[in-house]
Amino acid sequence: MSETAKPKAVILIADGMADRPVEALKGRTPLEAAKTPHMDRLAAEGECGQMDPIAPGVRAGSDTSHLAILGYDPHTYYTGRGPFEAAGIGLEIKGGDICFRCNFSTVDENMVVTDRRAGRISSGTDKLAAALNGMTIDDVTCYFKESVEHRAALVLRGPGLGHEVSDADPHAEGVKVHLAQGKDAASAKAAGVVNEFVKRSYAILKDNPVNLERIKQGRPAANIVLPRGAGVAPHLEAFQARYGFSGAAVVETGLIAGIARYLAMDIPSVAGATGGYDTDEIAIAQAIVNSLKDHDFVLCNYKACDLAGHDGDAMKKVECVEKMDRLVGELMKHLPIPTHLAITADHSTPVSFKDHTGDTVPILIWGPATRPDGVKSFGERPCAAGSLGRIRGQWLMTLLTNLMGTQEKYGA
Amino acid sequence: MSETAKPKAVILIADGMADRPVEALKGRTPLEAAKTPHMDRLAAEGECGQMDPIAPGVRAGSDTSHLAILGYDPHTYYTGRGPFEAAGIGLEIKGGDICFRCNFSTVDENMVVTDRRAGRISSGTDKLAAALNGMTIDDVTCYFKESVEHRAALVLRGPGLGHEVSDADPHAEGVKVHLAQGKDAASAKAAGVVNEFVKRSYAILKDNPVNLERIKQGRPAANIVLPRGAGVAPHLEAFQARYGFSGAAVVETGLIAGIARYLAMDIPSVAGATGGYDTDEIAIAQAIVNSLKDHDFVLCNYKACDLAGHDGDAMKKVECVEKMDRLVGELMKHLPIPTHLAITADHSTPVSFKDHTGDTVPILIWGPATRPDGVKSFGERPCAAGSLGRIRGQWLMTLLTNLMGTQEKYGA
Repeated sequence: MSETAKPKAVILIADGMADRPVEALKGRTPLEAAKTPHMDRLAAEGECGQMDPIAPGVRAGSDTSHLAILGYDPHTYYTGRGPFEAAGIGLEIKGGDICFRCNFSTVDENMVVTDRRAGRISSGTDKLAAALNGMTIDDVTCYFKESVEHRAALVLRGPGLGHEVSDADPHAEGVKVHLAQGKDAASAKAAGVVNEFVKRSYAILKDNPVNLERIKQGRPAANIVLPRGAGVAPHLEAFQARYGFSGAAVVETGLIAGIARYLAMDIPSVAGATGGYDTDEIAIAQAIVNSLKDHDFVLCNYKACDLAGHDGDAMKKVECVEKMDRLVGELMKHLPIPTHLAITADHSTPVSFKDHTGDTVPILIWGPATRPDGVKSFGERPCAAGSLGRIRGQWLMTLLTNLMGTQEKYGA
Repeated sequence: MSETAKPKAVILIADGMADRPVEALKGRTPLEAAKTPHMDRLAAEGECGQMDPIAPGVRAGSDTSHLAILGYDPHTYYTGRGPFEAAGIGLEIKGGDICFRCNFSTVDENMVVTDRRAGRISSGTDKLAAALNGMTIDDVTCYFKESVEHRAALVLRGPGLGHEVSDADPHAEGVKVHLAQGKDAASAKAAGVVNEFVKRSYAILKDNPVNLERIKQGRPAANIVLPRGAGVAPHLEAFQARYGFSGAAVVETGLIAGIARYLAMDIPSVAGATGGYDTDEIAIAQAIVNSLKDHDFVLCNYKACDLAGHDGDAMKKVECVEKMDRLVGELMKHLPIPTHLAITADHSTPVSFKDHTGDTVPILIWGPATRPDGVKSFGERPCAAGSLGRIRGQWLMTLLTNLMGTQEKYGA
């Protein structure tokens, strides 16, 4: 550990780590069955409890849970994943922007969709997107960026735009591209921009060298962009403005990166952080330590446990938990002091259910201002006996800023 | 103990008593380290838990916390300390009153401030205040009272007054008194009254015998009153109207007395209750017993623990806690039955932090209707294992009126 003047905090989220008892693990959860000496030590030295990421029993998504854990009530701010996905692939999003998920698709000369996914195109979409990005239509600017395979995102920014806009994507092949419609005047303006964007995308893309090459190879051209799923970007106060200190996010998925980018947090790229089973947990720990050099707060999301939950593989999940524990061990070697550290999950992904559930997740908070409570190991049931009691995700930042000593007093 | 027909309740608040582990106390908190046989017995016979005075992690002031504990949500009712301070020095405040903190100051003939604190005048301000109190300006009555040293409070009561009023106090010396300005029509009316009050205060005070004597002694005359920090008094339902029984407050500080007065609770004066380390805890206990003769509810605030926390003195805090336990012991000798008793703190004031923190506070509720839960001693961590779980301050009166059996049923 190294000395630092400023109080710092880290929230370490093992995505989907919490679980239910597994018969093959003798009735233990993967977390309870795994060997986790580092997390057990922190549990013994800190305060433990259980957390409802959103509210008791609510099945949280990773996006809604991370928003709550960062102190932004999703019931107020969450209108869908669209704006965060767009932010996640690298678009700068502002409150009020109208965001669409898009496909690169293939149409014939009559605007009939022949392949909604343009043959699941897997390369060259960056060049196609660059040819469309920044287009202006009347007083609206269109930001456009490719995501994985045939997927992309479109963001409209300009005055007087609504988001009650129907899809241009007909969601079927053999039918013509739909004309987007707006429910009200502001949405009609946005629909008009979408329709013009779709029309121009065809004009611009059909003869793009990427597509000429595909046609030569006998593959469907990605000759049009079809937006769907309109959503308006919420107005979220930036992390630093809300808390008075800077934050970084060491994360492995686009969606969580999108939330962090949305809050204007810094997002270091971490070589070896794959978001898969093979991710480099040591590199992730080092990225956290590195980020703490010029930030007072780091959010980390380690993804692998969730994959094992979705795969229904209890043994694999035990391995992923033990990998998480090695991440913690590496982090503790280099953590500056005074730092308060919270370790938890964003939701349960039980191997028996293969999807998110609304069970509580275990949480520990470690650091100099805590009151150690006698819990000796980190697990769903040991933590339920801890002194934090049963808390909600949206309280976590308040609990941490209290321990950090950075919070304003409410009253005299 | 003596028999009485009516169910009664007492909330005993040891101001700032809760704390964090202290190394010099072998990792115990002052409360855990102190010898508290009386509170330990009540913990063993009652229900224990931990309480967030406001909400998890929120750093409560004494004022916001006491409001919450008495069942008045500060997020709804608290607009600043001004109205409660004014009430605390003995002014009767009504909802809608416009309240100001004031200084007695010194100005020259050109209205230039030469001493903002009138030489920290320490006597005679009661006579000066009496010369101004009750003044009417148009249809507005001005209530004015001295506080400690050069401080005072001004309350404007009348129709159509707003509180968006800038300060007459220029917050600097060598500059002229400011003309208060109002942001809207109602506030402009209040600002006009303030300016006239300031003008008249000079006319009335400059030749007051207190000032003539000061001038003779070569000290700055307290020849003007400069209001600042306008705030509107919230409309708070009186304690008795809300709960259906009468309440008294045995308290040691002006701010808490102000809250009690605001709620029209009776406030007995207690000889020996100094609000300091030397306070007479036996006298306080006897005042509670006395108040229970003609009230069904008593709130008590014992201040000393908070002082030791602010002073960062762990050993002193242990002593203050043990003094609190003697208060409880004396109280239990004479408590009428059936009475339910809650013992808690309004916030933590850790000796390591020397200010309020947002940590939970321990709470015990003792009385015939409780379910004893096996907790054997009164302390932060023993209580965290109790059956009350983690509750909020604003739920306490509802819990007590339930135990008292005085609460209306909600539903059929």
